[in-house]
Amino acid sequence: MKIIDNLKEMNQEILKHKNKTIGYVPTMGFLHDGHLSLIKESVKENELTILSIYVNPLQFGPNEDYETYPRDAERDKQLAKENGVDIIFMPTNDVMYPKPLTFSLKVTQKTDVLCGKDRPGHFDGVVTVLLKLFNIIQPKTAYFGMKDAQQLAIVYSFVEQFNIPVTIKGLETIREDSGIAKSSRNVYLTEKEKNLAKAIPESLMYGADLIKSKAYNATEVLEKVKKKFLSTENENYEYLELLSFPDLEKITELNSTVIIAMAVKYKKARLIDNLIIDQNGNILTNFN
Amino acid sequence: MKIIDNLKEMNQEILKHKNKTIGYVPTMGFLHDGHLSLIKESVKENELTILSIYVNPLQFGPNEDYETYPRDAERDKQLAKENGVDIIFMPTNDVMYPKPLTFSLKVTQKTDVLCGKDRPGHFDGVVTVLLKLFNIIQPKTAYFGMKDAQQLAIVYSFVEQFNIPVTIKGLETIREDSGIAKSSRNVYLTEKEKNLAKAIPESLMYGADLIKSKAYNATEVLEKVKKKFLSTENENYEYLELLSFPDLEKITELNSTVIIAMAVKYKKARLIDNLIIDQNGNILTNFN
Repeated sequence: MKIIDNLKEMNQEILKHKNKTIGYVPTMGFLHDGHLSLIKESVKENELTILSIYVNPLQFGPNEDYETYPRDAERDKQLAKENGVDIIFMPTNDVMYPKPLTFSLKVTQKTDVLCGKDRPGHFDGVVTVLLKLFNIIQPKTAYFGMKDAQQLAIVYSFVEQFNIPVTIKGLETIREDSGIAKSSRNVYLTEKEKNLAKAIPESLMYGADLIKSKAYNATEVLEKVKKKFLSTENENYEYLELLSFPDLEKITELNSTVIIAMAVKYKKARLIDNLIIDQNGNILTNFN
Repeated sequence: MKIIDNLKEMNQEILKHKNKTIGYVPTMGFLHDGHLSLIKESVKENELTILSIYVNPLQFGPNEDYETYPRDAERDKQLAKENGVDIIFMPTNDVMYPKPLTFSLKVTQKTDVLCGKDRPGHFDGVVTVLLKLFNIIQPKTAYFGMKDAQQLAIVYSFVEQFNIPVTIKGLETIREDSGIAKSSRNVYLTEKEKNLAKAIPESLMYGADLIKSKAYNATEVLEKVKKKFLSTENENYEYLELLSFPDLEKITELNSTVIIAMAVKYKKARLIDNLIIDQNGNILTNFN
C-alpha cells in the first residue's frame, strides 16, 4: 500500500494505472465500519482502490469542529491496509489549496432542507473539494455512505450536471449494535447520550413502518415519528423531515422514493441519520 | 470525420480512443484562420483531434448577440474535415443543459478588468461550459487563441486550481492582411469600420515598441497609445489597459510579462485585441 501526500507523485500513479479501473473512497479519516464497507465494495469491484483522507476546511462552518475533528492517521493506515486499499492520498491544506481559490462553486438548490439549513456553505465546500479530488484521482466509481444522504444526492446531481466521468454509488448505512449509525463523531458521545441516541434509528424505523402501511400521509407520518421520538428522554431535535429522494423536495403524497431523516444535537456531537424508502415501502440498501 | 451531437455517442467514442492523446479545440463555430491554426496545432501534436462547435448561451449577456451570432455549420464541417479534425462535437442546448443547473460556478477575481468589466457573467458561462466539455471530451491538451487573452488567463487558472487534467495552450492571434485580429464577429463590420479598426493593432504595436524601448512607465505608455488611437478617425474605445499577465493585475512597473489590450465598439461589432509582451519587451507568440 502506498501513502502519498503530494500531487506530483499522485499524478504519476494515476498515469501508471490509467488502464485499470479505479475505485475511490473519499473520507475525512478516523475510519469506522461504514468507511470500511465502502472500501470493501471498491476492492471487490475495481482493479485499484484509492482512499483519500482529508479533513477539508472548506466544508466546516466557523463554529464547527474543524480543529477538533477526530484524527488518527496511524490507525487509519492500518485499517486501510488490512482492507485492501492500494493507495492512500493524504494531502495537506497546502497541497489542496496552495493559494486562495479565485472561483466559487456553490450549490444553488436543495440546501434549505436537512443539513443544508443548519450548515450554510457546507455542501459548497464538499463539491469544491470533490471536484478537485475527482480530477486528481480520475476514478471510474466513487463510493459514498447513504448516512450522508443529502451529500449523496448533491454529489449525484453535481456529477450528472457537469458530466463528470465518475459513477457515484451510495452504500447502506452501517450501524452500531445499538442501532446508531456509525460516524467518526460518535466518539464525542457520553454513555448517557449513546443511550438517548438509540431513539433516532428507532424513530426512523417506526416511520418506515408507517410509510409501508400506506395508512398515513407525509404530515401524519412526521407527526407520529416526532411524538415517538419526544416520548423518550430526548428533549429536542434539529430537524425531522420527509422528502423526495434524490430531489429532496417537500412532498405530501407518499408514492415515490422518499427519505425520512433527522439530526439531533447532543453536547459535543451532532448526529444525523436517515432511511431511504422506495415507493413500495421497502428500505433501500444502496443507491445507483 | 465523425459528427456527433449527443452524449451517448460521444462517451462511446472517448472510451474507444482512451489510449490515444486527444487534442481539443473548443469553438463557437463560424471558423476562421484563428480556429484553423488551433486545429492544425492539435492535429500536429495529438493522435486524435476533437473540435466542438457550440454557441453557449450562458456566456452571452441579455443584450448581447446570442441570437445573431454568425453560424455556418456546413462550411465549418468542410473546413474541419480539410484540416484534419477527427470528431466534431456539435451539441444542442438540450444536450448541454437538459435542465437548469442547480450549481453555480463563478469567477471571483480578475473580472473587473478588460472584458470582464463590460460583460458581467461572461467568464462564469465560459468556465461552466468548459468544465462540462472537458469532462465529456477528456482531452490531454486544449487549444485557445491568445486573442481572447483574458479567457486564456482565466481558463489557465481554473484548470490549475481545480486540478483538471488538461494542458491549456494559447496560440498566437491570427490577423487579416490589414492587421485586424481574425474574429467570427468581423463579418459585422462595414468597409468603413474595417478601415477604422486597423488603428487597433497599429496602436497596440506602437505600445509594444514603447514598452520595448524601456523609456516609459505604464501610465506613459497608455497615454501615448491612447493619443495615437484617438488621432485616427476612431472617436472612442471601450477599454485600453496594460496589466500583468496571466494575473491581470494593475501594474506601474514594466518588469514582467504584461498584456496591452483594447476593445472598441463599432455599430454591430465589438472588437478586442491585445499583445502579450515578455519582460524583455518581446511579443509572445504562444502561452504555456
